[in-house]
Amino acid sequence: MPADLLLTNIRLPDGAPSSVLVRDGVIRALGVGAAAPDLSPVDGGHQLLLPGLVNAHAHIDKNMLGRPWLPNQVPLTRTIVDYSSTERRLRRELELDAREQAAQFLRVALETGTTHVRTHVDIDTDAGLKHWEGVLAARDAFRDVMTMQTVAFPQSGMLARPGTVELLEAAVRGGADAIGGLDPSTVDRDPVRHIDTIFGIADRYGVEVDIHVHEPGMLGAFSVELIVERTKALGMQGKVTLSHGFCLGQVDEPYLGRLIDMLLEARITVMSLGSGPQAFPPLLRLRAAGVPLCTGSDGVRDTWGPQNKVDMLDRVRLLGWRINARRDDEIEALLAMATYGGAARMGDTAYGLAVGCAADFVLVPGDGPSQAVVDQPPRTLVVKRGRIVARDGRLALPATFGSA
Amino acid sequence: MPADLLLTNIRLPDGAPSSVLVRDGVIRALGVGAAAPDLSPVDGGHQLLLPGLVNAHAHIDKNMLGRPWLPNQVPLTRTIVDYSSTERRLRRELELDAREQAAQFLRVALETGTTHVRTHVDIDTDAGLKHWEGVLAARDAFRDVMTMQTVAFPQSGMLARPGTVELLEAAVRGGADAIGGLDPSTVDRDPVRHIDTIFGIADRYGVEVDIHVHEPGMLGAFSVELIVERTKALGMQGKVTLSHGFCLGQVDEPYLGRLIDMLLEARITVMSLGSGPQAFPPLLRLRAAGVPLCTGSDGVRDTWGPQNKVDMLDRVRLLGWRINARRDDEIEALLAMATYGGAARMGDTAYGLAVGCAADFVLVPGDGPSQAVVDQPPRTLVVKRGRIVARDGRLALPATFGSA
Repeated sequence: MPADLLLTNIRLPDGAPSSVLVRDGVIRALGVGAAAPDLSPVDGGHQLLLPGLVNAHAHIDKNMLGRPWLPNQVPLTRTIVDYSSTERRLRRELELDAREQAAQFLRVALETGTTHVRTHVDIDTDAGLKHWEGVLAARDAFRDVMTMQTVAFPQSGMLARPGTVELLEAAVRGGADAIGGLDPSTVDRDPVRHIDTIFGIADRYGVEVDIHVHEPGMLGAFSVELIVERTKALGMQGKVTLSHGFCLGQVDEPYLGRLIDMLLEARITVMSLGSGPQAFPPLLRLRAAGVPLCTGSDGVRDTWGPQNKVDMLDRVRLLGWRINARRDDEIEALLAMATYGGAARMGDTAYGLAVGCAADFVLVPGDGPSQAVVDQPPRTLVVKRGRIVARDGRLALPATFGSA
Repeated sequence: MPADLLLTNIRLPDGAPSSVLVRDGVIRALGVGAAAPDLSPVDGGHQLLLPGLVNAHAHIDKNMLGRPWLPNQVPLTRTIVDYSSTERRLRRELELDAREQAAQFLRVALETGTTHVRTHVDIDTDAGLKHWEGVLAARDAFRDVMTMQTVAFPQSGMLARPGTVELLEAAVRGGADAIGGLDPSTVDRDPVRHIDTIFGIADRYGVEVDIHVHEPGMLGAFSVELIVERTKALGMQGKVTLSHGFCLGQVDEPYLGRLIDMLLEARITVMSLGSGPQAFPPLLRLRAAGVPLCTGSDGVRDTWGPQNKVDMLDRVRLLGWRINARRDDEIEALLAMATYGGAARMGDTAYGLAVGCAADFVLVPGDGPSQAVVDQPPRTLVVKRGRIVARDGRLALPATFGSA
């Protein structure tokens, strides 16, 4: 339900004092003069207005938020297959309800200023479409307060588990925005057939591709080359996301330069969460080259591990600490991955702090965007389409909003 | 002022329900039966009790807490000398008051459950002993609520800046617990004379050594060897701290194994903050080998960079994310660096959650220590020597406590 709002006495990201007038969920005026006699102004306390945060890579169907702490049970070998096998077992044992966990996630996302979420959804021959249906139900429940996209994602492998392709296709027919993929060589053992299969689905149904490539070094780079070739062959430039793409941080010059050129030619977006232990794409270099970038939370408090948070400012700070970003311009470049970069990936052309844009924004204390990233203060106000959805770090909606 | 306290309905780190009875600042009883008719019990709400957090590597004299955001001005070459030169300039221009900034730091430290701080203090020929005197004044003001140690630290170089040695000696005579050092080759350009000088001071005055070694690879390892040799020659086993020691994460086997043996023989503690961009000591391997470990905040919101926080749980989480610590035992091993490991380095033999220990502890929500690390919730109660110094994340002392 788009709303009207007059928010006064705020600072824009460049420091300029302003007010914001919202009519029917759309920013109609910005600047010190914005006024509306029929609206009671909300005083922004001279705080900083940022555009809504964009989580372009989540797994909202399988977190443990609101549940007891779960000791990690993944074998120390820690392969992707170890993680997904452990996850399938625990998912059954714990009787995780994808809709409820998605709602848990989305409520915290709203509290922390996230207005857009692209989520991967596990689809496999154990769970069938149960997670998919749970996430769709959550998406419907949050329709007015969260912009969402879904990726039909073969977390447990695709070719390796017959029947998975048909399930993925069913989800795509059911409205997924993208078809996912996962480590074509190391998980599915057949890079060409894996990538051909998902691009085939994308082409047939007119959806995007968003593929997890954790594969290291030259093996991952070979996957990237195959992805680029098919993106161009099918005319899917601008519709493909390379998620993680650790290999981009692990190959030598001049090959990295050639890979960057390929990504640019295919207009592929790189989604990076960074990585604690591994080398990952050189973010500021990719940005300087013009490669579209976005970021996300990844899975939060799940069977994979406990370190991720829903809060996108936390992700941006982690990226900054990891790449030694100390200057404001560096930190703001990373923040753009969690704002404009993510919104562009999600195809939201009405995103931004400008007249005519959707009124999706977040008010925070802090002298500027870098301080907000570093301090991650409770969000003073979170506004979706003109409606105040969170205040002082707490949901301004019923506490069980979106639960069944 | 040590106090009495009866804290009931808490869980110990192993999950056991308990109460804690404190008399005159000392834990006198633990367990479900602990009681004292003369004290009004404080209900712990079934939350988790952790020993007080220990920040064993801070620079409390030169943060910008409570001041406007300062855009980073360090040249992109980013050498240690660039950082310290920029810092000296800005310190003058901003007229930073070491005592006031130290108090700002220590108040946030208390709010976040830190009960022990070892701080390096800049001593150089520009500032003379001004920072030293400021930190001593803050230490005195916080004497009842914070256990502190000071390191007389030549941040701007020592041999490279004549007159510095004399100032360092003056601080050591004035009560510094340790003499610091800094990159004997890359900053001071003479590793043997640098290390001989600081060990000479330590030997003459009977203080510890705590030396920053950021030097990479084999160059840093050569410094480590020189430090080990002098530690043994002077009988200073157990009294030396290697801070950062990035080189330990940058040398090959079997040399790393030999370095670990040397550290063990000299009973040298390794202080690590991890590092975003650089390889750093392999913490869990060092721990398994028996090398004493501790950690800290480093400088916070200073001219070096904005990414560090005062909160020690934040540091532990960063370490965990960076080394891919996902299991509870791994995360708890890192937390021990910020608790028992730090307290051991600071020589506090009365530290811990046991009868007879000083009543320095922190109460947090969470199912166990790992969840506290990952969630970093506001600290419900922070207790120093039986006295409640913070509650629900806010100081339970006057807001300007410790300021002049």
